[in-house]
Amino acid sequence: MAESPNQLHSLFLGPQGDNEQLLRELIESALQSHLEWRRAYHPEDSSPIPALKQKGWAGRNLLALEQEFAGLLAQLRGSVPFFHRRYNGHMLSEQTIPSQAAYFAAMLYNANNVSAEVAPVTTRLEGEVANQLAEMIGYDPSSCWGHLTSGGTIANFEALWIARNVLYHPVAARLATAALGVDISVLLPDGTLASLSSLDLWQLLNIRPSSSLDLWEKLWLAAPGPLIERTLKSYSLATLGYQDYSRQLAAEFGDELPAAAVLAAGTSHYSWAKIVAALGVGSNQLRFVPVNRECRMDPDALWREIESLTRQRMPIMACISACGTTEEGAVDDLHSLLEIRARAEWELGVTFHIHSDACYGGYAAALTRGPDGSRHSAAQVRGITGSSDWPSDQWLESITALAKADSISIDPHKMGYVPYPAGAFLLKDRRGRELVATDPPYLAIASDREAEQPVIGRFIFEGSKPGASAAAVWMNHRMIPLNSDGHGRIIASTMRAARKLHTLLGAANFSPLRVLRLPEPDLNIVCFLLHHPSLTSIRALNAFNEKIYKALSPDEHMTAPYMITRTKLTAPTYDGAIEPLLSQLGEDAALYRSDLVEGVTILRATVMNPFSDEAEPDHLRGLIDAIRDVAMSLLEPATAPDGVYSANNPSFSAKST
Amino acid sequence: MAESPNQLHSLFLGPQGDNEQLLRELIESALQSHLEWRRAYHPEDSSPIPALKQKGWAGRNLLALEQEFAGLLAQLRGSVPFFHRRYNGHMLSEQTIPSQAAYFAAMLYNANNVSAEVAPVTTRLEGEVANQLAEMIGYDPSSCWGHLTSGGTIANFEALWIARNVLYHPVAARLATAALGVDISVLLPDGTLASLSSLDLWQLLNIRPSSSLDLWEKLWLAAPGPLIERTLKSYSLATLGYQDYSRQLAAEFGDELPAAAVLAAGTSHYSWAKIVAALGVGSNQLRFVPVNRECRMDPDALWREIESLTRQRMPIMACISACGTTEEGAVDDLHSLLEIRARAEWELGVTFHIHSDACYGGYAAALTRGPDGSRHSAAQVRGITGSSDWPSDQWLESITALAKADSISIDPHKMGYVPYPAGAFLLKDRRGRELVATDPPYLAIASDREAEQPVIGRFIFEGSKPGASAAAVWMNHRMIPLNSDGHGRIIASTMRAARKLHTLLGAANFSPLRVLRLPEPDLNIVCFLLHHPSLTSIRALNAFNEKIYKALSPDEHMTAPYMITRTKLTAPTYDGAIEPLLSQLGEDAALYRSDLVEGVTILRATVMNPFSDEAEPDHLRGLIDAIRDVAMSLLEPATAPDGVYSANNPSFSAKST
Repeated sequence: MAESPNQLHSLFLGPQGDNEQLLRELIESALQSHLEWRRAYHPEDSSPIPALKQKGWAGRNLLALEQEFAGLLAQLRGSVPFFHRRYNGHMLSEQTIPSQAAYFAAMLYNANNVSAEVAPVTTRLEGEVANQLAEMIGYDPSSCWGHLTSGGTIANFEALWIARNVLYHPVAARLATAALGVDISVLLPDGTLASLSSLDLWQLLNIRPSSSLDLWEKLWLAAPGPLIERTLKSYSLATLGYQDYSRQLAAEFGDELPAAAVLAAGTSHYSWAKIVAALGVGSNQLRFVPVNRECRMDPDALWREIESLTRQRMPIMACISACGTTEEGAVDDLHSLLEIRARAEWELGVTFHIHSDACYGGYAAALTRGPDGSRHSAAQVRGITGSSDWPSDQWLESITALAKADSISIDPHKMGYVPYPAGAFLLKDRRGRELVATDPPYLAIASDREAEQPVIGRFIFEGSKPGASAAAVWMNHRMIPLNSDGHGRIIASTMRAARKLHTLLGAANFSPLRVLRLPEPDLNIVCFLLHHPSLTSIRALNAFNEKIYKALSPDEHMTAPYMITRTKLTAPTYDGAIEPLLSQLGEDAALYRSDLVEGVTILRATVMNPFSDEAEPDHLRGLIDAIRDVAMSLLEPATAPDGVYSANNPSFSAKST
Repeated sequence: MAESPNQLHSLFLGPQGDNEQLLRELIESALQSHLEWRRAYHPEDSSPIPALKQKGWAGRNLLALEQEFAGLLAQLRGSVPFFHRRYNGHMLSEQTIPSQAAYFAAMLYNANNVSAEVAPVTTRLEGEVANQLAEMIGYDPSSCWGHLTSGGTIANFEALWIARNVLYHPVAARLATAALGVDISVLLPDGTLASLSSLDLWQLLNIRPSSSLDLWEKLWLAAPGPLIERTLKSYSLATLGYQDYSRQLAAEFGDELPAAAVLAAGTSHYSWAKIVAALGVGSNQLRFVPVNRECRMDPDALWREIESLTRQRMPIMACISACGTTEEGAVDDLHSLLEIRARAEWELGVTFHIHSDACYGGYAAALTRGPDGSRHSAAQVRGITGSSDWPSDQWLESITALAKADSISIDPHKMGYVPYPAGAFLLKDRRGRELVATDPPYLAIASDREAEQPVIGRFIFEGSKPGASAAAVWMNHRMIPLNSDGHGRIIASTMRAARKLHTLLGAANFSPLRVLRLPEPDLNIVCFLLHHPSLTSIRALNAFNEKIYKALSPDEHMTAPYMITRTKLTAPTYDGAIEPLLSQLGEDAALYRSDLVEGVTILRATVMNPFSDEAEPDHLRGLIDAIRDVAMSLLEPATAPDGVYSANNPSFSAKST
């Protein structure tokens, strides 16, 4: 649809409201269309708002409304200028005009995407959007399922909610078949078939997700639907709750085994801690797998963790991989993690659900797709980015491997550049949703009632949700498709800018300061810290960088010339990244290694503005200058009066922190 | 602000787009203000969208965008006309112009209300909105807490999530104090003080929510913060997860007691089934309390259930009361339920969290508030409704009792007439949120860091969420305050219209059909069914009413003259409502009583359009005529050819169902 990055950029309002006319025209056409629709519905009915009342009201109250609204508008102008390239803080930027206009247009209708009955149009659009995302990822639309959520937390929650029910389903199936006096076969992770009745608890808790769902499907053939449903339900965790379920395990199997673990990288989003606590899994069961120097989950560490858990007879509910960590934008080597799981299946008989938290990075998959939907070769992708060395083969394998994850969360309201709220959840094997459905599942099988009237609310956690969100994402994808001409082009452009910033930071003269950088970014987040020899403890180093962050943060009047943010690399899960970072200091690193329990504060620039790669004005250099200026102002000559310093004087020391 | 219902109505777009000019002006001023804000931010920076590119792009792609957008607009016109009085189906209606305009205005800034750092303005507005709702309900703003959610499901989820953690906290506290070698006192539900170490498990699980939180606060004085935090955490359910927690109970107390129950009326929303399953409580633990003829939770039945659970030594996690059930709009006699709990505390030593699911009905509390925030007397309220007999004293007591519920969910996107998404959660004792916080709670106590920079995300389940939603609710409340001049007036007007419909349905001649009605509505939902002597089984009766519903439902071209919906009263929890309904048939009721396992299908008209009470055109009579016409067309003379019938012929029989 669009042929150059600049054309795509013209779908944004622009830092000076450059495309205001376009947005205004679309808004007006939306309003006009809606008004015509209203007026065409039973035009013979008189309105309860006759002109007289309207006038009488206007005289007294219009002024009040205008004043109040002006007050709101004045307040809103205290907002953070995410739209501008001077903002490189959190994962927030411009939104596309098509999505803004579509949100407004659909908001006027206020459909509720809980069900087609109250949202015949926008539930259809939501289905189309889910299919588009699934196709970009590489899921088979005929067997997967997806829907929009209010955001990534709910999408991640649904992933683990389903993973838990799929994990424990073979136990319920085993007890149900025993009660019904039938037996069925099940595929073990090593590829052999076994009869369900022959399995012990450990084996039951190590059935592949797809085999668990095969089992579920086979069960319906083993006895009449309502009987199966009732029996299965009576043994399931969802019905019993954890406390009675634990008692059932102890009574039926003697050894109830330790609670199941959830594996996640040390880089994982804090929502995972909430999720395991809320689901009753328990935060003790959230095991952090160490990361490597690129802040990706270390596959070897994952293998060691699996081996260790196997020795402890601790089943694994799920492994949470990331495609674009919140803090560093790191893209896990998902293909390696999948290989580790395959090895665990063959060597240890151990398996688990793999979820990719691609809330931030999922749209990067668009870069791997041609306009016809086919997957680009590595050479083609590098032709598009105009680079000989990025993205790497490894990166491309990681992105391609998303197709093999059991579930994925991906937020259109992040790198899709649409307004909040718009998260999405994708499930590779749609049968999994039946295990969390609130209606008896046999109805779905018996009558395919979904086709008649989809009640999304049966399968999702939320209830009422805005159809406008679906319309916004849909319109966005129409204008900016999920391929290398559309979103792939935007993401490549921000990645290019981020790499440029990374290079510039490395080459810039910050003397007497030094810039320590994390490796080149996997996506578009650049992480680094500033070091000065006078900062002789990790606490002092952290405080110094914290001050730089404060000076380059939004304040009441947005006076900071540029805005970035910061995060903390915590020990021990970040050790794999901290050590190479500090080792850039040579022998001086020893000063900091002794007290790493504090963690290491790093500065963080999220380069996701769609104009980031534009040369003029050069905001990347501007940002670097701003960082240098701030850092220098925090230094003072050891002997000179406060506030006086010279950039050429090597005897600076950082001001007391 | 406004003085008559008509003036309030002029804040809606109107069925014929009557107030289009107002909406258009506000939208334009929002756009203008936003553009000025953009242009005032570093105006010296050149834009990456020079006029030339913009023009070049426009030439090639503007047409495509216009076409795609027009395609979306055409699709949206297939939406359901919620805005019109002919629609009385689900809980959906017009939205107010102030909320629509404010949503648009704030959407342009796209702030993320997860944290003040990325939403300095709209997190403040969210706080103000939460306080407004709390004051309307009668919570003390200095000790309560509230925030917006994506909708009622998440708000309800948070309520039970917190209730669970508060319930189990005394157990963790007991084990933590034992480990630390300290002891503290705790208030028992009968008003006596006891030392924590002296309590058995049953007593620990029967501490009032506020006493549990007192205990939490006292603990911080008993030992250094980090030590307390670490110790408490190591014994808590959130950390251990249910499986290890159950083992801990068995090991420490011998008898781990049955899993805790959640009590809810048979009328409760299906989201509660999802919530108990997801939280790991288990749907077996969701105990339905029978309802009375008004579909309110029966206080006597609640007492019997508490007695029965006490005999089984089954603790109670929470009781879910409703203020406006989804299906019938029933308002529980909350004051009676609170009395039952007080009695349980004194007589049985049993207590629990009471949550009011006021997602639908919460805004009714506005009717009880004067413009100065004071509570109206019953006579004053009836003066406002212009009635001598409604709302009843009982209704007013139920609404006033909301102030004593431990938590409340209330959806501005339902009776607040704002666009999706906008739910709200209110917690009477704000300390409860600390038990679900993801950060170490001692930080909050030590430094009141919240005041410095509120990170809402610490305490809520969701992460990213639209600041636009907060702006919409805030603007709405500015123009339509939460008192009897504002939202109270709207709700009274819809209640008046619903009562009128109820009366008209009772008086209308449907011969040879009969209309059986549920009692007068507590809010504005009217439930009824149509009966004909030829329908000699419950299945036939249900199918007949289902057909009426189908004929009065949205179809592709919205050809139904009026739209309503239907629901099912299921046995046994609805028995208290079904029996009086059927008994209107006298001896004929016996035909149906024998097979009530099918449930009783009832028709349902949600009279929430803000213009519902307008006399012209008389859509209430129009709706009744439409129901009669449809019902008659489903009948046929026993002997005449298909489709021919006479309204005066008493020998009709219902067409085969």
